[in-house]
Amino acid sequence: MDLQTILSHCDHTLLSTTATWAEIRAILDDGIRFRTASACIPASYVKAAAAYADGKLPICTVIGFPNGYSTTAAKCFEAADAVKNGADEIDMVINLGWVKDQRWEDLLAEIRAVKDACGGRILKVIVETCQLTEAEKIRMCEIVSQSGADYIKTSTGFSTAGAAFDDVTLFKAHVAPHVKIKAAGGIASLEDAAQFLTLGADRLGTSRIVKLAKAME
Amino acid sequence: MDLQTILSHCDHTLLSTTATWAEIRAILDDGIRFRTASACIPASYVKAAAAYADGKLPICTVIGFPNGYSTTAAKCFEAADAVKNGADEIDMVINLGWVKDQRWEDLLAEIRAVKDACGGRILKVIVETCQLTEAEKIRMCEIVSQSGADYIKTSTGFSTAGAAFDDVTLFKAHVAPHVKIKAAGGIASLEDAAQFLTLGADRLGTSRIVKLAKAME
Repeated sequence: MDLQTILSHCDHTLLSTTATWAEIRAILDDGIRFRTASACIPASYVKAAAAYADGKLPICTVIGFPNGYSTTAAKCFEAADAVKNGADEIDMVINLGWVKDQRWEDLLAEIRAVKDACGGRILKVIVETCQLTEAEKIRMCEIVSQSGADYIKTSTGFSTAGAAFDDVTLFKAHVAPHVKIKAAGGIASLEDAAQFLTLGADRLGTSRIVKLAKAME
Repeated sequence: MDLQTILSHCDHTLLSTTATWAEIRAILDDGIRFRTASACIPASYVKAAAAYADGKLPICTVIGFPNGYSTTAAKCFEAADAVKNGADEIDMVINLGWVKDQRWEDLLAEIRAVKDACGGRILKVIVETCQLTEAEKIRMCEIVSQSGADYIKTSTGFSTAGAAFDDVTLFKAHVAPHVKIKAAGGIASLEDAAQFLTLGADRLGTSRIVKLAKAME
């Protein structure tokens, strides 16, 4: 798999709590230059980032992030606010306590409500695989498939582990054909990136692939 | 310092991403029984928790938590939504990227806006000391003092370190007299709890003091 193909599937990501505007701008510059799928950045930078990128790069942000236990109303507000500020893609975190309490209908209703709030923009649903059993992962594949969301995503990058090959394989076996897969968290080599894509991921959440591309110049 | 005095200053806290309603209910039961200052729980549980506690225990929740980089509009919505659901106290996280970019006026304006959205409820401002220099901590003491917020709080418990004695001492030296101090993150012994209170903390964010009290029964 060639480097540009891999780059075209990357959400070039900076979600550090202390990220400055200069650091965000560098992510945008690199995302534009290396033609990544998007730049994924904190919500407080979306408005400035959308103005700066000026249509040359889709802007992705995160909501209910990374803990997932804000209210449905708050997640919907955050999604609509992000879209208003210029976000093209929204990555939301599910309510993991609700998974443990088997509140499947509430989980489905929340994802549907956030999708509505996205006004046609792409919605990715982070299920935080490292906190789920295999049965819970499969159930979330089914719920995301029913919800109208565009992607299921493995990880926030802020919990105990990131993307695993086995989880992408499991997702591929259990999501409906219209649901794409994003692997995120800890993706650090071109070999791993290619392997995630080969297994069925359509997006990779990482900053390191661009760094590798720069080092190869 | 006697055990009940220490307990009366504790925000009995459960902010695990996977917390179930049964676990939250146990926190509420223990908070009521041991007469803690409040129970601090995820926003998605506030409505049920307020109904369950029925005025016998103040309900505290967290917003913009733990990363702090949601928009001011989103933080204000979250605060108002939490109050509507029955929250008595709101713990917000500041935008740490703005600290690094020295956007002091934006930080002040955001805290003031969230305080307005709290409709008279208690607002605590988490500055995440482990991510700040000493000069930044002092600047945040001044900003929180000007903001109308009720407390400055050390830590989310989700970053690289929790409460430190030196930070409480620093806060005490630099906040206005009307600003109280909450120490949170990693407080695990009665000795440490008493020391934080002696140094000037008015609240402790922890679940372990109640656990110790139960073990002593």
